[in-house]
Amino acid sequence: MIATHFLRRKPFSHIALLQTQKMAKSSFEYVKKFELDDTLLPNSWIVVRLDGKCFHKFSEEHKFTKPNDIRALKLMNYAAFTVLREFNDLLMAFGQSDEYSFIFKKSTTLYKRRAAKLLTTINSKFSTSYVFYWKKFFEEEPLKYPPTFDGRIVLYPNDENLIDYMKWRQADVHINNLYNTTFWTLVLKGNLTPSQAEKRLCGTVSADKNEILFKEFLINYNNEPEIFKRGTLLVRKTIFHNNLDKHSNVIVDTHDDMLKDRFWKEHSSLLLNKSKESIMYDGPITDIISEQTNCIKD
Amino acid sequence: MIATHFLRRKPFSHIALLQTQKMAKSSFEYVKKFELDDTLLPNSWIVVRLDGKCFHKFSEEHKFTKPNDIRALKLMNYAAFTVLREFNDLLMAFGQSDEYSFIFKKSTTLYKRRAAKLLTTINSKFSTSYVFYWKKFFEEEPLKYPPTFDGRIVLYPNDENLIDYMKWRQADVHINNLYNTTFWTLVLKGNLTPSQAEKRLCGTVSADKNEILFKEFLINYNNEPEIFKRGTLLVRKTIFHNNLDKHSNVIVDTHDDMLKDRFWKEHSSLLLNKSKESIMYDGPITDIISEQTNCIKD
Amino acid sequence: MIATHFLRRKPFSHIALLQTQKMAKSSFEYVKKFELDDTLLPNSWIVVRLDGKCFHKFSEEHKFTKPNDIRALKLMNYAAFTVLREFNDLLMAFGQSDEYSFIFKKSTTLYKRRAAKLLTTINSKFSTSYVFYWKKFFEEEPLKYPPTFDGRIVLYPNDENLIDYMKWRQADVHINNLYNTTFWTLVLKGNLTPSQAEKRLCGTVSADKNEILFKEFLINYNNEPEIFKRGTLLVRKTIFHNNLDKHSNVIVDTHDDMLKDRFWKEHSSLLLNKSKESIMYDGPITDIISEQTNCIKD
Amino acid sequence: MIATHFLRRKPFSHIALLQTQKMAKSSFEYVKKFELDDTLLPNSWIVVRLDGKCFHKFSEEHKFTKPNDIRALKLMNYAAFTVLREFNDLLMAFGQSDEYSFIFKKSTTLYKRRAAKLLTTINSKFSTSYVFYWKKFFEEEPLKYPPTFDGRIVLYPNDENLIDYMKWRQADVHINNLYNTTFWTLVLKGNLTPSQAEKRLCGTVSADKNEILFKEFLINYNNEPEIFKRGTLLVRKTIFHNNLDKHSNVIVDTHDDMLKDRFWKEHSSLLLNKSKESIMYDGPITDIISEQTNCIKD
Repeated sequence: MIATHFLRRKPFSHIALLQTQKMAKSSFEYVKKFELDDTLLPNSWIVVRLDGKCFHKFSEEHKFTKPNDIRALKLMNYAAFTVLREFNDLLMAFGQSDEYSFIFKKSTTLYKRRAAKLLTTINSKFSTSYVFYWKKFFEEEPLKYPPTFDGRIVLYPNDENLIDYMKWRQADVHINNLYNTTFWTLVLKGNLTPSQAEKRLCGTVSADKNEILFKEFLINYNNEPEIFKRGTLLVRKTIFHNNLDKHSNVIVDTHDDMLKDRFWKEHSSLLLNKSKESIMYDGPITDIISEQTNCIKD
Repeated sequence: MIATHFLRRKPFSHIALLQTQKMAKSSFEYVKKFELDDTLLPNSWIVVRLDGKCFHKFSEEHKFTKPNDIRALKLMNYAAFTVLREFNDLLMAFGQSDEYSFIFKKSTTLYKRRAAKLLTTINSKFSTSYVFYWKKFFEEEPLKYPPTFDGRIVLYPNDENLIDYMKWRQADVHINNLYNTTFWTLVLKGNLTPSQAEKRLCGTVSADKNEILFKEFLINYNNEPEIFKRGTLLVRKTIFHNNLDKHSNVIVDTHDDMLKDRFWKEHSSLLLNKSKESIMYDGPITDIISEQTNCIKD
Repeated sequence: MIATHFLRRKPFSHIALLQTQKMAKSSFEYVKKFELDDTLLPNSWIVVRLDGKCFHKFSEEHKFTKPNDIRALKLMNYAAFTVLREFNDLLMAFGQSDEYSFIFKKSTTLYKRRAAKLLTTINSKFSTSYVFYWKKFFEEEPLKYPPTFDGRIVLYPNDENLIDYMKWRQADVHINNLYNTTFWTLVLKGNLTPSQAEKRLCGTVSADKNEILFKEFLINYNNEPEIFKRGTLLVRKTIFHNNLDKHSNVIVDTHDDMLKDRFWKEHSSLLLNKSKESIMYDGPITDIISEQTNCIKD
Repeated sequence: MIATHFLRRKPFSHIALLQTQKMAKSSFEYVKKFELDDTLLPNSWIVVRLDGKCFHKFSEEHKFTKPNDIRALKLMNYAAFTVLREFNDLLMAFGQSDEYSFIFKKSTTLYKRRAAKLLTTINSKFSTSYVFYWKKFFEEEPLKYPPTFDGRIVLYPNDENLIDYMKWRQADVHINNLYNTTFWTLVLKGNLTPSQAEKRLCGTVSADKNEILFKEFLINYNNEPEIFKRGTLLVRKTIFHNNLDKHSNVIVDTHDDMLKDRFWKEHSSLLLNKSKESIMYDGPITDIISEQTNCIKD
């Protein structure tokens, strides 16, 4: 019976597969040579910045609160947190709105510093986490379609440049948030149409916007939540558990003012290459910290 | 009252924000200059290949059927389909196991051919779709954690090189699938341990594996499903609806043999740059086709 | 006595050199890792184009005849010829004015296709030849200072793009030479100042310039030397020696019209990758050909 | 008469040139888009290193003295000097044997930091100077053919890396020169054949070579000329002219020990970006210095 079956098989199949096997190793494999090396310059800061694609539309379709949706910001932070948790060579990450920057330690040799590998791994992990954890933050609001984040990789040769990068992104939060807060206040509380609000704000400086908020709506911009005004910095620190009388290393989510030199003095060991000197954390126990330590949230 | 409030505000806040705004536009914005141009060579084929990261572990934790899990393959295909549906400049895509290759038309100017932008957009969209549509294919089997896909971009200067690339990936399916089919048959039906099966197959060529399958397990490898033996090609074709008496353009999922020259003759218009000549499809109505046309699945 | 000397030596010198030797191999050698790979895409045309730096000034200081100095053009051609003679992987070269383009065969693996190596080798050899052979063409006119050529490398994925590149450079010769011929005729024979000549030509098309030359100066532009109107193409061909009754391969300098399709038909084997089919040459015996064959110049 | 002439002209020439002009601006000019941007990362040290091609053969054909030919070294230094004199953004250069490294100031924006432009300009200028000034150093020994130098560009993100690069090249001089000095002493004075000398030196460390030189040939390696042992550093310094009672900035050629930390302390202002603080020079008046200052050579 086996023999019968055997005869029924197409006689060329053996040969075909044999040829295929050989072809894959010979005639076709040359195409691998077109994969060019994209190793990044050693000893320089690698920054991966992700950006939501068409998030204006995405935020409308998912009814994000304006000007800031705390659920959306927390989801961004949580997705970034899962990335940091997976890659120890990531020193920190900073996020705002629909963008997140990840900073590798200067000396990282992860994936031999190959640009595309580093970029796509961070990008994919962040993207899948965003979808995976959507429900954790948006609960009954369903995710209607899979969002997309694009990414880029930028090198900074020295600490000053990196610090200025971080300041640049955080200054951007201030500017955008003050604008958006004023804009949406004019629209939602001031009953202006969006285009009226836009005209009203055209040419104004920060002081003018503060004035509008305060004089017309009794809103003191300084009292707005830090997460809105400053974005979120994820960074590795050491926490002391009073109850357990021990230390542990955690990723903390803070809203520190990186525009101040004091911040960089306090975090100077962060940028030192080989330093294992840890930075003590004495801020509030957030959800993210609580998850890592079993501490009770403040 | 306003005045009172006003006085209570920290007097430097105006100035601070004003400074921040100016700083962002002046002292920090220079960091943008470190973003270097990564435009790809014009008039050459752009291939984006994605690969599952640690999918061996992922497939075990999600109880993938060995050697092939049809649900997992269909999910990969569906995620790739959502990518093709979104980017018209993608000509086709080919997938197998946990990898997928996307081919842009040679003349695409999408995102000005910037490498990182093209790479991450495809990578992110595929990744989020994988998570978003998991349930559609795995139903009761929950997704335990967000998976990661890495990606790379490769250029091929001419059609021959691109065709060889496609053949290389499809030859790879044959080789891997014959090996895996034999290996898992020896383990699952032959009661060998994985390491015994590995030893048994060490040094064997295709013909030997065919022999083992056929003589010992009455399995004719030729009768294995095409999707397992050849992977899946997603390509844009024209379909004729008998019932509606009209044509429409659809993305079809096929398992054609790209190692045969006949395939490339039949699909020659695919590679021609300006051709809008469509290729007729007369294969079965798959789920993917059905979704686009409202045709009833075969 | 040796001993005495020995004692006089600084006792640490041994150790210092020993340390140096070790340091070079250990502490410093890491700096080599900063040398990144710059391999060029396989199977695409590599064009190296060199350009004279500040040759306006250079040509004035060396009293180049205007609008064309035949000595300068011949020196450019000869320098390019020495480059082609040295690198067999160079298929052809095209020059005009103070620029020269070198075309490598598509499949070259010279220096593993490393961009900087290919670029600088061609650039340096051309530059040193220009100085070395200056006297051969300028005789009593001394070279006042060493000139500089910069260079760039460009890839073209297919034959059509390469042909268009060649046409682009040759069309450029036409345009520049017609302009320059008219400009300098107006200045030298028409007694206009350079700025008057510039104004006169402003807004004119080719036909207008032909008119000026012909009606005002009885110059038929068509009769201008080919080397001025079309630049010089250096290409490998086969020559038949009547006197010796044998063939030999030579680099010929021609002024063929590459804008015509006929040229590319006749030279089609030039672009075919593996072809050793030679192209017969039946033009005049130039100095460059004479030097290679010992044929008597026409 | 003009009319007659006019009729004799080929009637299509006008049109042909007109078409050419248009074609160059339209159909062909697209090939410029294949020229990709190669801007270098800002704020990092740009090093251009040139190397003689086949200089073993070149040195033999031009009867270079072994192990070191002072004429050849001085020509290298002079060629490098002409490069530094032309490009103010070059901070310093270090040479040995047939190689020379040029260091741009970190903040240079010369040629918008385009890699190929910077690389080829330095490479070409050095190469033509080598030929142009040959006679100045080799006098009656004629240059037989134009030599070739290849080049590469390397980035160093910080001062420490750059200093280590300089140390690496200088440590290399030590190692090579001690080897070569011993090798050629064994051959020229010890009457060993080259292969016997090679065997004799196989496995020896610096101390062994010092021993051989001293015990067998009464040569104290420490007394060898600094230019041989340490190579030549060209750097911009300020010189005080006693006779003229004024300062001037000059390029000085020194043989300082860069492996010592003292050197980098004394030259610390060299690496500071915006510093115009000059470094005083109090060494001997060399030919190169003399040429710039009209000071009399020591």
